[in-house]
Amino acid sequence: MEANTTNNSRPIIPGIFALNMEDTNWVMTSSFVIFTMQTGFGMLESGCVSVKNEVNIMMKNVVDVALGGLTYWIFGFAMSFGRSPLNNPFTAMGDFMVDPEVTDPLMGPISAAFLFQLSFATTATTIVSGAMAERRERNCWVWGEHGFLNKLGVVDIAGSGPVHLIGGFSSLVSAAMLGPRLGRYSNGLDPLPPGTPVNAVMGLFVLWWGWLGFNSGSTYGVSGAKWEYAARAAVMTMMASFGGGCMGLIYSMWRLGGRLDIMDLINGILGSLVAITAGCFLYRAWESLLIGAVGSAIACFTMPMFDRLGIDDPVGASSVHGMAAIWGVVAVGLFADNPYPLDTTKGRSGLFKGGGWYMLGVQSLSVLCLASWATVTNFIILYLINKVVPIRMDAYEELLGADLVEHYIRHGNAGISRVVSAVRPFPNEAQIDQITIMGQNSGHETYINQTYYGGMREILGPTKVAVDGKTGIGTIGALQTISRDLAPKFAWVD
Amino acid sequence: MEANTTNNSRPIIPGIFALNMEDTNWVMTSSFVIFTMQTGFGMLESGCVSVKNEVNIMMKNVVDVALGGLTYWIFGFAMSFGRSPLNNPFTAMGDFMVDPEVTDPLMGPISAAFLFQLSFATTATTIVSGAMAERRERNCWVWGEHGFLNKLGVVDIAGSGPVHLIGGFSSLVSAAMLGPRLGRYSNGLDPLPPGTPVNAVMGLFVLWWGWLGFNSGSTYGVSGAKWEYAARAAVMTMMASFGGGCMGLIYSMWRLGGRLDIMDLINGILGSLVAITAGCFLYRAWESLLIGAVGSAIACFTMPMFDRLGIDDPVGASSVHGMAAIWGVVAVGLFADNPYPLDTTKGRSGLFKGGGWYMLGVQSLSVLCLASWATVTNFIILYLINKVVPIRMDAYEELLGADLVEHYIRHGNAGISRVVSAVRPFPNEAQIDQITIMGQNSGHETYINQTYYGGMREILGPTKVAVDGKTGIGTIGALQTISRDLAPKFAWVD
Amino acid sequence: MEANTTNNSRPIIPGIFALNMEDTNWVMTSSFVIFTMQTGFGMLESGCVSVKNEVNIMMKNVVDVALGGLTYWIFGFAMSFGRSPLNNPFTAMGDFMVDPEVTDPLMGPISAAFLFQLSFATTATTIVSGAMAERRERNCWVWGEHGFLNKLGVVDIAGSGPVHLIGGFSSLVSAAMLGPRLGRYSNGLDPLPPGTPVNAVMGLFVLWWGWLGFNSGSTYGVSGAKWEYAARAAVMTMMASFGGGCMGLIYSMWRLGGRLDIMDLINGILGSLVAITAGCFLYRAWESLLIGAVGSAIACFTMPMFDRLGIDDPVGASSVHGMAAIWGVVAVGLFADNPYPLDTTKGRSGLFKGGGWYMLGVQSLSVLCLASWATVTNFIILYLINKVVPIRMDAYEELLGADLVEHYIRHGNAGISRVVSAVRPFPNEAQIDQITIMGQNSGHETYINQTYYGGMREILGPTKVAVDGKTGIGTIGALQTISRDLAPKFAWVD
Repeated sequence: MEANTTNNSRPIIPGIFALNMEDTNWVMTSSFVIFTMQTGFGMLESGCVSVKNEVNIMMKNVVDVALGGLTYWIFGFAMSFGRSPLNNPFTAMGDFMVDPEVTDPLMGPISAAFLFQLSFATTATTIVSGAMAERRERNCWVWGEHGFLNKLGVVDIAGSGPVHLIGGFSSLVSAAMLGPRLGRYSNGLDPLPPGTPVNAVMGLFVLWWGWLGFNSGSTYGVSGAKWEYAARAAVMTMMASFGGGCMGLIYSMWRLGGRLDIMDLINGILGSLVAITAGCFLYRAWESLLIGAVGSAIACFTMPMFDRLGIDDPVGASSVHGMAAIWGVVAVGLFADNPYPLDTTKGRSGLFKGGGWYMLGVQSLSVLCLASWATVTNFIILYLINKVVPIRMDAYEELLGADLVEHYIRHGNAGISRVVSAVRPFPNEAQIDQITIMGQNSGHETYINQTYYGGMREILGPTKVAVDGKTGIGTIGALQTISRDLAPKFAWVD
Repeated sequence: MEANTTNNSRPIIPGIFALNMEDTNWVMTSSFVIFTMQTGFGMLESGCVSVKNEVNIMMKNVVDVALGGLTYWIFGFAMSFGRSPLNNPFTAMGDFMVDPEVTDPLMGPISAAFLFQLSFATTATTIVSGAMAERRERNCWVWGEHGFLNKLGVVDIAGSGPVHLIGGFSSLVSAAMLGPRLGRYSNGLDPLPPGTPVNAVMGLFVLWWGWLGFNSGSTYGVSGAKWEYAARAAVMTMMASFGGGCMGLIYSMWRLGGRLDIMDLINGILGSLVAITAGCFLYRAWESLLIGAVGSAIACFTMPMFDRLGIDDPVGASSVHGMAAIWGVVAVGLFADNPYPLDTTKGRSGLFKGGGWYMLGVQSLSVLCLASWATVTNFIILYLINKVVPIRMDAYEELLGADLVEHYIRHGNAGISRVVSAVRPFPNEAQIDQITIMGQNSGHETYINQTYYGGMREILGPTKVAVDGKTGIGTIGALQTISRDLAPKFAWVD
Repeated sequence: MEANTTNNSRPIIPGIFALNMEDTNWVMTSSFVIFTMQTGFGMLESGCVSVKNEVNIMMKNVVDVALGGLTYWIFGFAMSFGRSPLNNPFTAMGDFMVDPEVTDPLMGPISAAFLFQLSFATTATTIVSGAMAERRERNCWVWGEHGFLNKLGVVDIAGSGPVHLIGGFSSLVSAAMLGPRLGRYSNGLDPLPPGTPVNAVMGLFVLWWGWLGFNSGSTYGVSGAKWEYAARAAVMTMMASFGGGCMGLIYSMWRLGGRLDIMDLINGILGSLVAITAGCFLYRAWESLLIGAVGSAIACFTMPMFDRLGIDDPVGASSVHGMAAIWGVVAVGLFADNPYPLDTTKGRSGLFKGGGWYMLGVQSLSVLCLASWATVTNFIILYLINKVVPIRMDAYEELLGADLVEHYIRHGNAGISRVVSAVRPFPNEAQIDQITIMGQNSGHETYINQTYYGGMREILGPTKVAVDGKTGIGTIGALQTISRDLAPKFAWVD
């Protein structure tokens, strides 16, 4: 069934709702794939940070989807793609809390369109979570039919600009305003080691395959010739990642004398994916390889540069999403084919394809507008918020880690006990003292104490028993006596 | 190619096999997505339990798919959707071991239908694995064309009832009959901390996106107007999860004074997804948000309630799947639109949409029937099984953990050595003694002992060397001498 | 839009480019699913090896995709499916660096075809990474229209032979030539325990669902009757895995007296999936169950056999991919239906379906050719490489682990410090000494030292403080004094 747009009485019917059955299936399948990128971002980010913050990062991403999604439903979609006579080149003003009735002839397409844009919006939200408000609503400049950049002919198929550039610049401003983590540069500029590198690489993998849905889905359907360009988008996405991977590999081995730093490779590949996103089906294979390699190099080289400036961006979002996206948006102006019969470039081509300087100019203008917008609004918002509530955690909270402070999850072997010892007293020390170390089962410990060691529980907390049993040593007289008795039973360590 | 049903000579051709090419593609893609929920359940459940049981939970889920899938092929599909003159309102009786020949004109649709139902059945199996037999075969009451609830007009699109309600009540009965874990309530009612919280949140993410396939796929195709409702189902699934996420966040921060318990948020979101499942494309956006929020609140509030009753459900399946599903099935009777032109509600609407009390009555009856069935049969089956083989592990096995007892996998830093010390002697202590701690490489340890420390291996086991080297302390004379010599070499700890 | 092949002026238009919109959508969706198998292989392999090599395995797989993909674009696709008058029964010779212009009427199909083959090629690359060059280019014997095995009528739908058999035999040769890991058989033939079993099982799950895309996608579209066989392929893939899972369960519990070894179950299921791959939509359900069970048994029984021969294959690729694939390719000759109206078997049937001995002969010939090719070329290539650069790491590097040596990632609790102590001196000891243990935050440690303990940092490195604080014991006079002062502050262990 073709969406019957003629029966629709609303003032404006944007192309965003021109989806038939095949298009809708493609857009929905792509959305399902794009949502999996949340799993990827979660694992990548939580794998990159210190172990004592890894759960907090995951929870942040869960909350991003829930709150970010709700906000997008209420405001975001309406201000990007809403149908209203009030739409103007800077914002749309209709379809707040979009909710088509079953009798709406556009119910299906509106639902699919919202789902697809929602999957993009939650991705953008996750890239930088500190500053949500301004980040999603300016994509209407680029993608809304009324948007002033759109009217100038800007081309940004899957959002190097609206998603990654804005996300990356928001990250940059936030990182600069928050200041580096405590002790970040005390041992030099080298990045702190990732807490759970396997999870970080797993996150890269999930993002990589999710990106195929992101870019391929951005043909926004398969009808007409769109399916051919969807296939091209997927191929060029992979080609760019090959270029990015090779560049990341070369950069890391050059920098470290043959050794491979996992963050160089991860961020190199992500940088190449960000770079190809803007023009994913407008390039040929060699060009994609090159665009990916350059995006990767930009991500790799700007990371230590920001560190030298004292801007500490733990997951490298400023470089990977911000800097590589500049190149991604500009590259469209250089390399874009005219994807006949699609109207993506409005018939124009890039500079190297004989299209002259126009596209390059518009693309550069888009970079300028989006980067300025992200920088200025983020600065203002964070500045104002900081006046009300300090945006930076207290030092003792940062040292204890957000997992312990915000979720009462206490990791073992992560140096937390040492921090507890060092920073005392702090406000919630009494509660912290009671928290079982993750992985141990406090119920079982108590059961063993009560069942096998009778009254000992009053004297020894569970972990103390284990420690003393392990070493046969105690610093307090009473403990020493008990642990000497226990010693033969506590012969193993694990 | 439209499935040519007219050539088919079998007695009954249910609508389940009316799938054309587009429908089949949609159903299959959805099935692929639904199967990924197994990854999600595995990671969520293994992340929630104690570390010493995490591998066992994963293996359980693997076995669930293999044995559960085989059983479903032999009995389950036949008794739910089989074609037979013996079909009656309580069971179907055909197509056991479904296996269409290549000459069967329905070969494609039968295969796709079986795959889709199989993906549902394995999901249901995984929700509660303790009691398989009775759980899958009653969905024919609701979904089979012959089913008595189906004939009354019950509506349960993607299975809040047959999948989640039955799964949740089975969990509840099992948890109550098994009794709480040793020492579970010794330190109060607070839940035991999850063993690997990052994995638990990752599992939530995978389930979340998998649920889109679950609910969207439940239009059972895209032909006609089905694609429009598939899109609506996906949007409403996300809307419900936003409501659920916000409710979980509010509940947790209210309960804990601003802190966020990860299980509140995880189970809140899952509860909202369970609640939206029954009527996923029958609601409007606000209603979905509300239904999700209420489902989330039910999941959050019933969890501590069961704990107060002494029912210890480690992963919260009773609340998330059982209690939230009651609301999910009932909500259809309140909010359901008539999804014209689909026949899902047989033209009826919910109470608040002017459809009167009929749907609410039938939905409530469905809740009663399914909950009673799950409760009674589970009780009988577990009672009988317990007479033959005790359904609860021995205390020493529970303390050692299923990973060690059943798979000879020994975790480090999880308190297992302390248990081994405390509960000795137990039957297989001799073997347990030989098991290398996970993450260490016993081959390398032996090689180092033999190559670098010669004859020392007779006196010191590998880990003992490490311990003594680490502390420079030994309780036995011989060890002290050796470790004093080793001390300068063992200056580092990791 | 049907691909308009008549306008094409290139010399040969293989069937590989006969894809319409629906076919392309199916092929692309399948490719997206197949790429997720990289996540599965990464998690499975990194979960199986020692913790001290787990990151290196992940990085290897990232590099495999990037370099392997680039190589496939340059050479692989061209030598398998290229269009050229030089094509001969042993190789294709066209479309190197495939890159269709937007004006190419086959742009869409070529892109989709390349993407699909690329997803297969990267899977094959990952199965054995040691020897890339020869592994992918012989699939043209089987799948290229010009291939000599293809012309004889060999049937290998999703690549038991070209992907798994060649991958497995390459692994076998590599494992035999590398020799067993240090100390591998010092404690008997039992496999070394997996480092992170939860990740290994998660990897199995991801592969399992990815395999559905692998096999279902291999109908190479849905037009005509292909969609019916795509559905059948998915069902038979699941059926085989049920047979394989049950067999792995029985084997493990028989071998270990009721206990379940996780690698038996994992490799049993993978073996069954490898076995069903060659004829995934040519079998009936019972046959699939049987073929899976036999594939599983072969994988399970050949693993200890190779160990008895002293061939140490850490992840079991030789058995799972190599041995089970022999059965998979041969089984086609026994059980294959003629999938009318598809031309897959060129109208032939297997021995047990009345088709006589021809298919069995051709399938067996295919096994012989592919196994010989993989064995001989791998041997020659590794022999030559080893003359130039030793293919085996130095002993001290193997003991330290590739994560530390190649990526400077230092795991805790994995025995690495003990190795560092034992094998000193070694070339890069000075750097290794400086590496923070994973999970700890070196910035925070330094900050605490400087802020809370002032000048102490010169005397004590961060971890040494923690150790001494933990035990209250020091072996050097100066440390003893300091740690006695610290003792009351370092009362907790984590």
